[in-house]
Amino acid sequence: VGEFDLIARYFTHPPRGAWPSQGVGDDCALIDLPGVRIAVSCDMLIAGRHFLPDDAPEAIGHKALAVNLSDLAAAGAAPRACFLALGLPEADEAWLARFAAGLHALADAHGCPLLGGDTTRTPPQLHGAGPLTLSVTVLGELPPGQGLTRAGARPGDDLWVSGELGDAALALAARSGAAVLGPEALVAVRARLDRPQPRVALGRSLRTLATSAIDVSDGLAADLGHVLTRSGVGATLLWPAVPRSSVLRAQPEALQRDCALAGGDDYELLFTAPARQRDAVVAAARAAGVAVSRLGTIRAEPGLEILDAAGARIELARRGYDHFAS
Amino acid sequence: VGEFDLIARYFTHPPRGAWPSQGVGDDCALIDLPGVRIAVSCDMLIAGRHFLPDDAPEAIGHKALAVNLSDLAAAGAAPRACFLALGLPEADEAWLARFAAGLHALADAHGCPLLGGDTTRTPPQLHGAGPLTLSVTVLGELPPGQGLTRAGARPGDDLWVSGELGDAALALAARSGAAVLGPEALVAVRARLDRPQPRVALGRSLRTLATSAIDVSDGLAADLGHVLTRSGVGATLLWPAVPRSSVLRAQPEALQRDCALAGGDDYELLFTAPARQRDAVVAAARAAGVAVSRLGTIRAEPGLEILDAAGARIELARRGYDHFAS
Repeated sequence: VGEFDLIARYFTHPPRGAWPSQGVGDDCALIDLPGVRIAVSCDMLIAGRHFLPDDAPEAIGHKALAVNLSDLAAAGAAPRACFLALGLPEADEAWLARFAAGLHALADAHGCPLLGGDTTRTPPQLHGAGPLTLSVTVLGELPPGQGLTRAGARPGDDLWVSGELGDAALALAARSGAAVLGPEALVAVRARLDRPQPRVALGRSLRTLATSAIDVSDGLAADLGHVLTRSGVGATLLWPAVPRSSVLRAQPEALQRDCALAGGDDYELLFTAPARQRDAVVAAARAAGVAVSRLGTIRAEPGLEILDAAGARIELARRGYDHFAS
Repeated sequence: VGEFDLIARYFTHPPRGAWPSQGVGDDCALIDLPGVRIAVSCDMLIAGRHFLPDDAPEAIGHKALAVNLSDLAAAGAAPRACFLALGLPEADEAWLARFAAGLHALADAHGCPLLGGDTTRTPPQLHGAGPLTLSVTVLGELPPGQGLTRAGARPGDDLWVSGELGDAALALAARSGAAVLGPEALVAVRARLDRPQPRVALGRSLRTLATSAIDVSDGLAADLGHVLTRSGVGATLLWPAVPRSSVLRAQPEALQRDCALAGGDDYELLFTAPARQRDAVVAAARAAGVAVSRLGTIRAEPGLEILDAAGARIELARRGYDHFAS
């Protein structure tokens, strides 16, 4: 079973609570309180899976919060508070000071203070302690009735993505030896892997323009697949329109496709909007200081069709990251 | 450094957010939204530290939520929503179904639906995968301006605790061979360790009666110490008044003291209330279906004094659980 099946099968017990809510299986849960809607997201990062134990502590602190802020961005919510549960192999004060500095710097930049949490020691294993484990929960604010989900894409909508895709995956490929990069290129793609910039300002301004949104964390094809499934639609995506850095464009075409379409860890916003909003989307992106690219079109017929420059279908060897794929 | 020093040193960056809040270092953060106050708590549980990998999956699901509901109980908040981040060594469907059943049963009983979360695979270690790791975040509701914290105890207040203390620690002692129990006694104390019952109804009714509250998770002496420090007061605690089960009372006095005063994992409510509220406290406890015991008195002079039946001071070998104590 895959991760998405697991979530659907065991954790979508029908909500029966006093707070009206939506969004199980979305980037954020949206909860309606008197006078305000809040968005909540929660992500776990484990050393050896989402980062390496010897990565810079500041980068780990940054990334743990950034991936959660990216979920708020996808909902169009304004970040308001974060919580940290930290499982530490040992109490290394120098490491903690640097980790906290990385987390607080991003929290301050987004007005999202750390309001609580939990620290615990990872238990001894056969060889050394268990891996460093971080779980961050973020709370964001939305006007009543507003907020983007994966479920609103409609036939005829434009398909958009922010920034450039595939550099984080290229950094992983370089680390594993699957790609060879010069020192400057390596620094550039490592920054995309280690220091993702959540598109919070863009997400907030898309709230009244977009029909659906998701952040690209598992890979463009996989995350687009989530939107299509939840919205009950299909899409045509033009590979030549997928934005890639000059570093990635210097790589072989097959690696470019794998990184940009199935790589993940991009933390860009993938969203849909009616064609009449094109100018408004571009203006919103400019105001947020982020480029946006139009990738294709939503259609009524289910499925995802990816076309190359000649209009021929591209078949992907893999669609994206699934923790439990066999 | 100890866990509490770590929290204070690196994670109490002054909050600078748009939502007024209090409670960093408390059981819950209290956040004031327009028209409602919410309480938020977040705890991480790791196999080998907070439970054993081969404990019943239902019990693990129950406990992961129970320890968080206990934090809401200590704030006097009504549970409203929970979120789960789950790091799994493998995708074992039978295990997941039982884990989810345990969690959902307690969530349903408290009107606290699971609204979102994250599943990830723990990375490979030298021998097998990393340990099962759970992080639960709970959200609760309070009337504006209300909510209990550790900071309100005043000289002259009575010191109270719910239920009985020390059985969970006795179960751990039995597991390690430090105590020998018959089969029925073992079942009884194991239930206290594996299936703690958060005192949610009691906490809610104490909201307008108590001056401070905390849940007993690290051990009575340690948790009372947190209240005294945050409230700037001291206390006299009478050891004979500490409520213990008949199973624990059958053990040697030294083990009783260690389990009931320093054991932890009790998830009972420790709280302070003015002496004039005695009858109201007892009535509230009766309505909530939980016994409460009066343990001692808050005094102005700092420090915790524990007295035996003869009025002599008891010195503790250890005060409670600290993950990073050296």
